[in-house]
Amino acid sequence: MGKVICVGLGPGDPDLMSVKSHRLIGTARHVAYFRKEGRKGQARQIVEGMLPATAIEHPMEYPVTTEIHFSDPEYNRVLGAFYDDWADRLHALTADEDVIVLCEGDPFFYGSFMHLHSRLQGRCEVEVIPGITGMSGCWTATGMPITWGDDVLTVCMSTLPQEELNRRAADSDALIFMKIGRNLPKVRAALQAAGRLQDAWIVERGTMPTQTVQKLTDIGDEVPYFSIIVVHGHGRRP
Amino acid sequence: MGKVICVGLGPGDPDLMSVKSHRLIGTARHVAYFRKEGRKGQARQIVEGMLPATAIEHPMEYPVTTEIHFSDPEYNRVLGAFYDDWADRLHALTADEDVIVLCEGDPFFYGSFMHLHSRLQGRCEVEVIPGITGMSGCWTATGMPITWGDDVLTVCMSTLPQEELNRRAADSDALIFMKIGRNLPKVRAALQAAGRLQDAWIVERGTMPTQTVQKLTDIGDEVPYFSIIVVHGHGRRP
Repeated sequence: MGKVICVGLGPGDPDLMSVKSHRLIGTARHVAYFRKEGRKGQARQIVEGMLPATAIEHPMEYPVTTEIHFSDPEYNRVLGAFYDDWADRLHALTADEDVIVLCEGDPFFYGSFMHLHSRLQGRCEVEVIPGITGMSGCWTATGMPITWGDDVLTVCMSTLPQEELNRRAADSDALIFMKIGRNLPKVRAALQAAGRLQDAWIVERGTMPTQTVQKLTDIGDEVPYFSIIVVHGHGRRP
Repeated sequence: MGKVICVGLGPGDPDLMSVKSHRLIGTARHVAYFRKEGRKGQARQIVEGMLPATAIEHPMEYPVTTEIHFSDPEYNRVLGAFYDDWADRLHALTADEDVIVLCEGDPFFYGSFMHLHSRLQGRCEVEVIPGITGMSGCWTATGMPITWGDDVLTVCMSTLPQEELNRRAADSDALIFMKIGRNLPKVRAALQAAGRLQDAWIVERGTMPTQTVQKLTDIGDEVPYFSIIVVHGHGRRP
């Protein structure tokens, strides 16, 4: 019996994936990865040139991304059926061989793989290789430490309601906001209200060749969903 | 002119360091690392067998660890002088060659290197290679995702006052407590008050051969300072 191995790819620069992930990808027989229909997929892009010529690829194309809001029951139904189907397919492949699932960042940190992981429990062996998170790649790109001494770090999705973002922004030493895109005005308002707008940085495509690092006050209103906003802590410094 | 390159080593398993860190360590000329006096040092231990025979080692031995409380001005004075001295020494070495500084986990996430980093600004080029955090290694070891959907993650040092730990434990979906050791009773009390004690896991030496993963309710009162307590989120799951 083979197993399903989810390999964390790290923040984007292929040189930042772990030695273990690198080795597993370079010797893979079956490789599965999520992507939006009609796209190459970010995870697949990161491993470009690394897969053996004999690898069999299994692109797992989301049936929906932002067309239906996640609060709509239909969103859960359609995505649930998608994950059920792919859990079955990956499980079937393990009858003969290991299956490598590519996952950007760290698989257990807001990753999509967890929805397959929960469905594969008790059916086959599943191994998860951690990765450098996207947020680590982004705070490293700012050239400043994210947390010092006893700093509290809070990580928030910008999809949260305005009131909740306000409360979090006002009550943490260091802050990370993910899933920005159309939620940018909410994050800006929350940081403004907390008096921290001037301290905020936005990093797009962190660690990739096209990386940008800017003060949040220096940008317009259009930013990618996967950009990350970083507010550094300022704790104890001997 | 050489530069100072701080390489993140990841959570402990050498196979989990990045391809880039691995390459830099394997070709290093000067290698510096922090350690407690009389110890080999955890960072040095991780790279055992990886350094070139010609590498020159620079152990940076802390003049104090827990003998003086960090709230004592003497703690800041002694440690400040220590970091000043090593910043000068590493800077001097860059006149001829690159210097590799080893750092467990991710250097900009509660790492000691940041105290050298701030002192080297404007004196020589400094590069930081991110790493998989210790907490990623620990939540992966629990075999369960740390965050789902819109979960808020809060990272706290257990050295914080009881009241602050209580407040944080009661107000986050997912929680990480670091720097446990003698602070264990405070974290236990905070999680108990928040009704989350039953959900908490403690991971010691995560990703290392001697790793242990236990329910927090199943352990005694003696745990290492560098163990990590993990409380998983339970957000949206299609």
